[in-house]
Amino acid sequence: MTQTSFDTHTPAAQRVADALEAAASPAAQHVFTQRYADAARATAEHCDAQTQAGRSLGALHGVCITLKDNFDVAGETTMAGGVVCAGEAPAQHDAPVVQRLRDAGAVVLGKTNMSEFAFSGVGINPHHGTPVNPADPAHARVPGGSSSGAAVSVALGFAEVGIGTDTGGSIRIPAALCGLVGYKSTQARIPCTGVMELSRTLDTVGSITRSVRACLAVDAVMSQQPLPTDAANLRGLRFAVPQTLMMDDVDATVAQAFARTLRHIAEAGAHVVEIPFNALGDIAALSMPGGFSPIEGYAAHHARLARGANQIDPRVVARMTLGKGITAQDYLALHNRRNAWIAAARQTLHGFDAMLCPTVPMVAPLIEPLLEDDEAFFKVNRLLLRNPSAINYMDGCAWSLPCHEAGELPVGLMVSSLAGQDAHLARVALALENLMNSLHS
Amino acid sequence: MTQTSFDTHTPAAQRVADALEAAASPAAQHVFTQRYADAARATAEHCDAQTQAGRSLGALHGVCITLKDNFDVAGETTMAGGVVCAGEAPAQHDAPVVQRLRDAGAVVLGKTNMSEFAFSGVGINPHHGTPVNPADPAHARVPGGSSSGAAVSVALGFAEVGIGTDTGGSIRIPAALCGLVGYKSTQARIPCTGVMELSRTLDTVGSITRSVRACLAVDAVMSQQPLPTDAANLRGLRFAVPQTLMMDDVDATVAQAFARTLRHIAEAGAHVVEIPFNALGDIAALSMPGGFSPIEGYAAHHARLARGANQIDPRVVARMTLGKGITAQDYLALHNRRNAWIAAARQTLHGFDAMLCPTVPMVAPLIEPLLEDDEAFFKVNRLLLRNPSAINYMDGCAWSLPCHEAGELPVGLMVSSLAGQDAHLARVALALENLMNSLHS
Repeated sequence: MTQTSFDTHTPAAQRVADALEAAASPAAQHVFTQRYADAARATAEHCDAQTQAGRSLGALHGVCITLKDNFDVAGETTMAGGVVCAGEAPAQHDAPVVQRLRDAGAVVLGKTNMSEFAFSGVGINPHHGTPVNPADPAHARVPGGSSSGAAVSVALGFAEVGIGTDTGGSIRIPAALCGLVGYKSTQARIPCTGVMELSRTLDTVGSITRSVRACLAVDAVMSQQPLPTDAANLRGLRFAVPQTLMMDDVDATVAQAFARTLRHIAEAGAHVVEIPFNALGDIAALSMPGGFSPIEGYAAHHARLARGANQIDPRVVARMTLGKGITAQDYLALHNRRNAWIAAARQTLHGFDAMLCPTVPMVAPLIEPLLEDDEAFFKVNRLLLRNPSAINYMDGCAWSLPCHEAGELPVGLMVSSLAGQDAHLARVALALENLMNSLHS
Repeated sequence: MTQTSFDTHTPAAQRVADALEAAASPAAQHVFTQRYADAARATAEHCDAQTQAGRSLGALHGVCITLKDNFDVAGETTMAGGVVCAGEAPAQHDAPVVQRLRDAGAVVLGKTNMSEFAFSGVGINPHHGTPVNPADPAHARVPGGSSSGAAVSVALGFAEVGIGTDTGGSIRIPAALCGLVGYKSTQARIPCTGVMELSRTLDTVGSITRSVRACLAVDAVMSQQPLPTDAANLRGLRFAVPQTLMMDDVDATVAQAFARTLRHIAEAGAHVVEIPFNALGDIAALSMPGGFSPIEGYAAHHARLARGANQIDPRVVARMTLGKGITAQDYLALHNRRNAWIAAARQTLHGFDAMLCPTVPMVAPLIEPLLEDDEAFFKVNRLLLRNPSAINYMDGCAWSLPCHEAGELPVGLMVSSLAGQDAHLARVALALENLMNSLHS
């Protein structure tokens, strides 16, 4: 891989023109909910003028990015992939992270489609249509969600960065299914102010890109706390591979790619250790009666549900309504159980540099069979969310890295760690990416 | 004032012996719930031996401290001023802050009496009796609470530091009524792990001492983030004096001491600016239906209420039961309203170095009339909590500094600021203390 994270050769105005043209192609259907063509052109021209004068606007000078539809942009009503918010007051300010991205020179192409209110891992959207996964366009597979358009905007090449959010896997799932890099940091690392809430406890801002280095450059801007960018040495690192939950119902393509990847990691001199981690099997029961997303999501959106439930995806209404009527006492007990679980997980993972598992246990399923069949949809949704959401429950940090070979459907390798371990995990992710680039080049 | 925070001349063993003797006097009745006489003597001897060898155990080498009854001490069941927890499992570890204090060389004399579960500002305890305020022992006045014994242990001189907690004023109220210094930091500054919960949102660990410098030395140990210890220059500082709520129902002694103190501060060259701060009047309504302490306290203690409500102070039962049955939705809305309120308060206080008000609007009332009369008790309780709890609601930081003259009953000056302003506020508190020492010496 190159040391440069982004395309710095092509003038920004040219890249924006190319991107806007590509965004009008059939493949890009349903990717955007908003386009900022004029503003993007103007910003790009400003960047190019600065470049010619020998100046840079910042770490993302002229980099084309997209914003998930749940980020506040000043003057617009934030819709979060739905329509029920139409008529609500427009945002007065850009979300602070959007402001930071603009200040660093990023060119915002538009807002991207998403699962409504970020409440599913599949990426199907009944209001705006579902962006097709570019990895296998002939078969119209799901892109993964909830940051569906974010991933597809990068996979199709018109954005270098798709800014998204991850509450139970919403960055890592589409990154995995589309063959991209996705990073969900420790929750508290990046401010969620000005981002439409699903779960205040779990919502995490992050990005989808083509490389770990690009993700790290974006993270440095959004968090204002740069992580290290030197790869760890894989030799001697200790990776835990949990055998509970994470390996259940893994399809053949994923199983093969994951096993092959573990073998390469071991051959590079790392210790790859299967551990039981039985506590992963307890999360579902500990999350009763509601789980954070339904309870906090219901609290955030109950007025919209009361006013316009018939305007909201019934699958979102069904899951969010699970959070209705839960007492504060049961909600606070949920926090207590999670805190105790995290403390125990910290013991279990002591002495390991990171965990490894498939990001999701399946390759991208076809869209069509999931459109009308709720049972099939919810089964796929549960499987897609299962592994990533365990890391949200842990308050951990995690990367999804592509680990498939040419000709295979995309498979994601999830490398994850405990809360606050973002710096070490970044060095590990760089090392794993280097390894995979060396194998696949 | 001297630059040394603590008595370093008298050998620790001598101070412990004196303290243990004083603790057995009638004036010290009801101050302790536990005494660690043998352990304190042993630690003191160890300190003295180290001193003789030219070594110091740390910043609190040989300093006599007391712990409020809600801190975990390994091997003991934490009782939090009550009896209902008897029979519950003993704490396995010292609370982390207790461990930090011991590691810094502190000598723990015992655990101090408190309002049961830290749930009142008066300091009356029906289980263990109520420590008498040493400022006017002839009239048996309340010590203030909930850290009642913490304050009295310092006021009587056998401890140099009373470690307490402050959820709605529980450090600052007894500090004010007993004529001592009390510091409640920004909530997140010091870990509450191993401290019996009242309100996870508001509970703050802190200390009561005889000087700002002593409080800062203790804070540095407990927070592991030392604050500055150089006094600010009062000349040119801007102090806001809110006219809403804070000055209501102020008794004559407090009014006189506060007005005199403001005059001295202005004479020292500071700007003292009355501001309306109307939002202070909104807190009560914004806290409906329950407020953080009843809701979070009920969640923390509901099993004890179910099992042994008849063993708990009925006044605590009455207030805590207000938190029963509140939905998660209403609880989360409480957080949203508070966050919006804090953002507005930040605007209101922009350009000011700190706020000034009386810590509490009254001098210490007599104990006896409050023992049986619930109406009188709750009225006094509301008045005592009113000003300090506004700062907890703001997630702010605050000091109570004695501002009475010799011969007057103790009056506290509260100097407070926004969340995270602990460093600047420490320098301001040192300056105000210097000013008052210069006036009263």
